Amino acid sequence: MNRRAPAPLPDAARRVLRGDRQALARLISQVENRDRSVLPAVRALYARSGHATVVGLTGPLGVGKSSILNLLLGHLRALRKRVGIVAVDPSSPFSGGSILGDRIRLERPAGDDGVFIRSMAARGHAGGVALATRETVRLLDAFGMEVILVETVGSGQSDVEIHEVASTSVVVVVPHLGDDVQSMKAGLFEIADVFCVNKADLPGADSAAKYLTEMTQLGVAKGRWRPQVIQTSTTPPRGISELWEAIAAHEAYLDSSGSRRGQDRQRLTGEILGLVRERVDASLAAALERDPDLQAVLDRVVARKIDPHTAADRLLAAVRRPK
Amino acid sequence: MNRRAPAPLPDAARRVLRGDRQALARLISQVENRDRSVLPAVRALYARSGHATVVGLTGPLGVGKSSILNLLLGHLRALRKRVGIVAVDPSSPFSGGSILGDRIRLERPAGDDGVFIRSMAARGHAGGVALATRETVRLLDAFGMEVILVETVGSGQSDVEIHEVASTSVVVVVPHLGDDVQSMKAGLFEIADVFCVNKADLPGADSAAKYLTEMTQLGVAKGRWRPQVIQTSTTPPRGISELWEAIAAHEAYLDSSGSRRGQDRQRLTGEILGLVRERVDASLAAALERDPDLQAVLDRVVARKIDPHTAADRLLAAVRRPK
Repeated sequence: MNRRAPAPLPDAARRVLRGDRQALARLISQVENRDRSVLPAVRALYARSGHATVVGLTGPLGVGKSSILNLLLGHLRALRKRVGIVAVDPSSPFSGGSILGDRIRLERPAGDDGVFIRSMAARGHAGGVALATRETVRLLDAFGMEVILVETVGSGQSDVEIHEVASTSVVVVVPHLGDDVQSMKAGLFEIADVFCVNKADLPGADSAAKYLTEMTQLGVAKGRWRPQVIQTSTTPPRGISELWEAIAAHEAYLDSSGSRRGQDRQRLTGEILGLVRERVDASLAAALERDPDLQAVLDRVVARKIDPHTAADRLLAAVRRPK
Repeated sequence: MNRRAPAPLPDAARRVLRGDRQALARLISQVENRDRSVLPAVRALYARSGHATVVGLTGPLGVGKSSILNLLLGHLRALRKRVGIVAVDPSSPFSGGSILGDRIRLERPAGDDGVFIRSMAARGHAGGVALATRETVRLLDAFGMEVILVETVGSGQSDVEIHEVASTSVVVVVPHLGDDVQSMKAGLFEIADVFCVNKADLPGADSAAKYLTEMTQLGVAKGRWRPQVIQTSTTPPRGISELWEAIAAHEAYLDSSGSRRGQDRQRLTGEILGLVRERVDASLAAALERDPDLQAVLDRVVARKIDPHTAADRLLAAVRRPK
């Protein structure tokens, strides 16, 4: 229990809660830049988050993730759900970039206040994008978005691991997996709560779906979630409502099985450790800048008077001293 | 100056300095496992390192890095240089793995004590392989290897960034760069001290070399190193002695220009920061394990009683308390 009286709500937070889209956009930009001046607002809005369904879409390049995302957005709007989209995938037309130069940039329908689309720049130091993505999802959540769709590239070594952000991870594949079978083994297979076999009009879709269904039956204990395999196509649209039902079924499972809380805890622990590392890195940089003794320590390592481990111990001691 | 009397040399370190290959292999395995019990030996051997020329070979898959490495090894042995090889590339036949199942595993010539080959498993937590690779290079250096060749995959997002380990970075490419031009722009181009255009017997080799030479002339200030572009082929071998001469020329430039010390300092600083992060991560894991209060903090974040930033501050305070 927190015994302190709640601090007054910072202005930026109040605006976001009032539905001010510009205030939200500005706050997200500051979070993306890891601007610590907005920490009070970010902290205050945390208590107002935790209501949205956060769905991750990942998969190799070229499988049609963005088209699926676009159709899913339409489906959810038809269901009157308020939807946030966070595109971390640099090839996504939602993020403005596109591998194919002639693809149009996808934007929210004009005047539709029930949609907020945001792209994250996949730059900055390792871990920074992941932290910014999590906080952005939470800001959209506090803003009142009921479903938040997060799109990333499923490279297996992405900066943003989708299952660390989303409560339901959808892995999009196409009938002919080819080389991607390897990367599936390496990581995507384990994180999928729902498989989306897109381009289901292509030959081989049924056997791909059958293969995935068989794979998902291996090693799943009784009573545990068994990943659903949904076939979709985008021209013409097919399977989108089934895809949403599979996502909703997984969300219902998280509640009925009691596993949601444990997963939340695991995700939040990872995020908190990321925040600690971010602070340590900042402390280190600041200590190195202001403390000539530490610079001398580095010089002595270069001169091989002391070794890197000894230097690391001294730097750690400097970080341990509170400023 | 270090005023403390030098500690007695640990047994493992003494054996390595005596030329005991098994002791070296064991020590490297322990370093790879981040086994802190060998820290005294690793620390002691640091003072005996710093003599070897450390050359990195990187480049996209399929350009023939391993063949170049093998020929370079032969060339250096003909020059009577003692050579260490560290293969971090999982597709390398030196590391035992191979994309092509039918390729043979490369091993040191039987009975040749002037060669030591070691592969690093690209596993474990982020940053761990990079730290283990640096320490392995240093152990080979202390062991008396005069040239250490480090092979990695040039993915642009590799765990082991070659220029953080090697004083000379060789980027291997093939005449038709194709999609790799993008990744070149993204990172490989900036780190190359020497370009090796392999498969120079293929059409387009001359124009690729010309293109690279023109690119390397852009933006290089007078008196600064301009990356050399060497054409090689492996069947039959061609250009290998030129490649070694280009590497040696860059090493000579590092000394004559006085830039070696600054680069060493930058690399060691990066390594030391990596070691600090490793210690912080270990302290965090230990603190979370032994301190029920910290577990309670996590529970309160899950319950949205406190926010992740507040929790991060508490964890950081726990890490700052020395054990």
